[in-house]
Amino acid sequence: MQRIKAFTFGRQLLKSRCGSASPHHAVSHSLAQFSSQGPKSFGLLFDIDGVLVRGRTLIPAAKQCFRNLVDHDGNYKVPVVFVTNAGNCMRQTKAEHLSHLLQVEVCPEQVMLSHSPLRMFTQFHKMRVLVSGQGPVEEVAQNLGFQDVVTIDMLRDACPLLDVVDHNRRPKEPSPPSKALRPIDAIILFGEPIRWETNLQLIVDILLTNGNPDTAWNSIQYPHIPVLACNMDLLWMAEAKNPRFGHGMFLVCLESLYKKITGYELKYQALIGKPSVVTYNYAELLIKQQAERLGWATPVKRLYAIGDNPMADIYGANLYNRYLQASRRADTKMQAASGGGGAGPLGETIDEMTSTELGGVSGVPRPEGELPERCSSILVCTGVYSRDQQELPSDPTLTVTEQRIFHGHRDFRFDPALTQPSFMVQDVKEAVELVFQQEACPLE
Amino acid sequence: MQRIKAFTFGRQLLKSRCGSASPHHAVSHSLAQFSSQGPKSFGLLFDIDGVLVRGRTLIPAAKQCFRNLVDHDGNYKVPVVFVTNAGNCMRQTKAEHLSHLLQVEVCPEQVMLSHSPLRMFTQFHKMRVLVSGQGPVEEVAQNLGFQDVVTIDMLRDACPLLDVVDHNRRPKEPSPPSKALRPIDAIILFGEPIRWETNLQLIVDILLTNGNPDTAWNSIQYPHIPVLACNMDLLWMAEAKNPRFGHGMFLVCLESLYKKITGYELKYQALIGKPSVVTYNYAELLIKQQAERLGWATPVKRLYAIGDNPMADIYGANLYNRYLQASRRADTKMQAASGGGGAGPLGETIDEMTSTELGGVSGVPRPEGELPERCSSILVCTGVYSRDQQELPSDPTLTVTEQRIFHGHRDFRFDPALTQPSFMVQDVKEAVELVFQQEACPLE
Repeated sequence: MQRIKAFTFGRQLLKSRCGSASPHHAVSHSLAQFSSQGPKSFGLLFDIDGVLVRGRTLIPAAKQCFRNLVDHDGNYKVPVVFVTNAGNCMRQTKAEHLSHLLQVEVCPEQVMLSHSPLRMFTQFHKMRVLVSGQGPVEEVAQNLGFQDVVTIDMLRDACPLLDVVDHNRRPKEPSPPSKALRPIDAIILFGEPIRWETNLQLIVDILLTNGNPDTAWNSIQYPHIPVLACNMDLLWMAEAKNPRFGHGMFLVCLESLYKKITGYELKYQALIGKPSVVTYNYAELLIKQQAERLGWATPVKRLYAIGDNPMADIYGANLYNRYLQASRRADTKMQAASGGGGAGPLGETIDEMTSTELGGVSGVPRPEGELPERCSSILVCTGVYSRDQQELPSDPTLTVTEQRIFHGHRDFRFDPALTQPSFMVQDVKEAVELVFQQEACPLE
Repeated sequence: MQRIKAFTFGRQLLKSRCGSASPHHAVSHSLAQFSSQGPKSFGLLFDIDGVLVRGRTLIPAAKQCFRNLVDHDGNYKVPVVFVTNAGNCMRQTKAEHLSHLLQVEVCPEQVMLSHSPLRMFTQFHKMRVLVSGQGPVEEVAQNLGFQDVVTIDMLRDACPLLDVVDHNRRPKEPSPPSKALRPIDAIILFGEPIRWETNLQLIVDILLTNGNPDTAWNSIQYPHIPVLACNMDLLWMAEAKNPRFGHGMFLVCLESLYKKITGYELKYQALIGKPSVVTYNYAELLIKQQAERLGWATPVKRLYAIGDNPMADIYGANLYNRYLQASRRADTKMQAASGGGGAGPLGETIDEMTSTELGGVSGVPRPEGELPERCSSILVCTGVYSRDQQELPSDPTLTVTEQRIFHGHRDFRFDPALTQPSFMVQDVKEAVELVFQQEACPLE
């Protein structure tokens, strides 16, 4: 009962923070007394599926763990951000769902969905975009800043002869009226849609007709119009015993069909969501905002990313850590160079990262201010990965590198070192305890 | 009006032929007087989509052409068989639909769907098979001889936690009751299903659990349980300006996902439908039966296959022709060998064909009696292929071989020679006129 009381009290406090249009400046100092327990300078990034929940079910360790993460008034002891590759919903909805499950207040500003960084891709906001996904995709796109949004259903209605796989949904008359449609400029893939055959057919039609599905395929332009994809997770853990298909599987289908028809590789202008660096740039921005709200004077120096998926959470956190190290080396060299030293090429390790790994054409501009020193990855065994039951069987006759099947995206390099977590623990409660131990900071 | 009268009369006559359980022995001789106009010894194989119809619309040339193919009494002048890769229906339904459109009687024994040869794959008939497709798949499977059929919907109901891509179709409760299910022994892919995400997830689950979706993926067996696929057409021509996705596209998705998860290639125990040889073996059997019905005394020596798809109809007819030549050479050598000659290895060209090209593990036993001398391929320009508008643009800097994108199935060799038709004409009417010219036989 006491916990619920504290939760209710904290909820009221946080409501005042979350509700305001620009809340953190207004309240951060008044909240400092509740939150700041010393010179803490770290923040936590939580994955959701397989770490906190499986399907609709809360993982027991999660509730306990979050009880310890807030003080008696329901305020977080350190900056906490939820970084999920889910994207077929609004972050407000996700925040409410998490608040309900974890029984601590989670505000939308703490939640990052796979598509959240699209807010920064302003060069696409005025284009006419075709969006694929399920749930309120049109609303999601508009909230992110897109001003001219066409859904797959709208395209189906405008061109009723295109989608004919389902015999029962074929037009009843042989020449149904088609509506005039201005050309599509770009395609945004938010998350796994429903009726993959419809989305695959219509997206390929748009790609092969340069955005004008009424024209013939014989004028194929390559490279095709821009494709921006969010969430490349191949598999995720719901209630079933085995992992379930994620948006990454839809992308594999789209890539394979496009290649089979045209002979060319499908190209992404941006691939966002974990493990791409742009996602962690954005998460770091949210962590900084949380730290400000807590009234922290010192910058956040260390990030801990807790996840269940070696190819998304661990690979992403490690790739971001590699980016941090490279950026810091580049900064040092730049300083040395401006001091007259003969420095080598700047940011050479960043240059070695593929454009896809960094997040795409635009990416998020590097946040102002000091970069964190490092980002550690913590693997839990309550989701896609488990200690006893490997994701897939290993053949002892193969070497370690050969054994692992690459479940990352086609455009990411298979670097086995990046799938090795800094720490491996049983569940999220152990993960948080470990972080506070590492930081020599009392948790309870 | 006269045509309609003749059609009605012929319809009655043909009804007596089609209706009987074993009709052709009973009536063939009595019908000979109507049909036999000399020593004809050829037969016609018609593709349907893109040759006779586009979507629900009859191609005008088809009606004219079929008017000439029957005599005044509505009897066919030569054996005619419809060889389609469609499979999501019963052949009775297809025959009725064709009779209605073409205004000549088409009986089910003249229609061959992509799955028809499965009737001969008796070694699978007692197995517990999972069937994928749309329409009456359970009935289709039972009619072909399968005795223990599980549909995708039945599997979904039995294991409600497996199919969770569509948020609205997820089980409402976290632990819905699952039903006990005996292991699946084999998978049959009849044609493109609806909701590809559901079929792809459940088929991969069955493959990765050796037929027991309640067990964990960590005991993957490879090679997996048998997969038999019908209809590998990538694209087909409906009313839309551009080709539409066929079952071949679904197969590309399944192959790509299986490989992405396991690292292994999906294997087919049989791949039937055009262009595999087993399909033409079966079509030849039907042509022979038609010839018997017409009271022909001489065997059918030449086949003409009319189609719109270079990768299915033309490739298939040419591959079958290659098989015929090889079989005839082998027969000659065998005769020479039995006469004491020092012959080389028998049927060497057949040995060079892949098992997939021949149709799979079992295939249809080579029909008894004399093989046809040849099978010619005739390409029409009313479907997937058109003279003005190539299927896909060609880059003049590439060689002929490089130019063509291979739209055949992964397990068929890309042999550009096999995609070259014996003849190319505008439409099906021209095709039939050409055949009768070649055979020096009056058509009208």
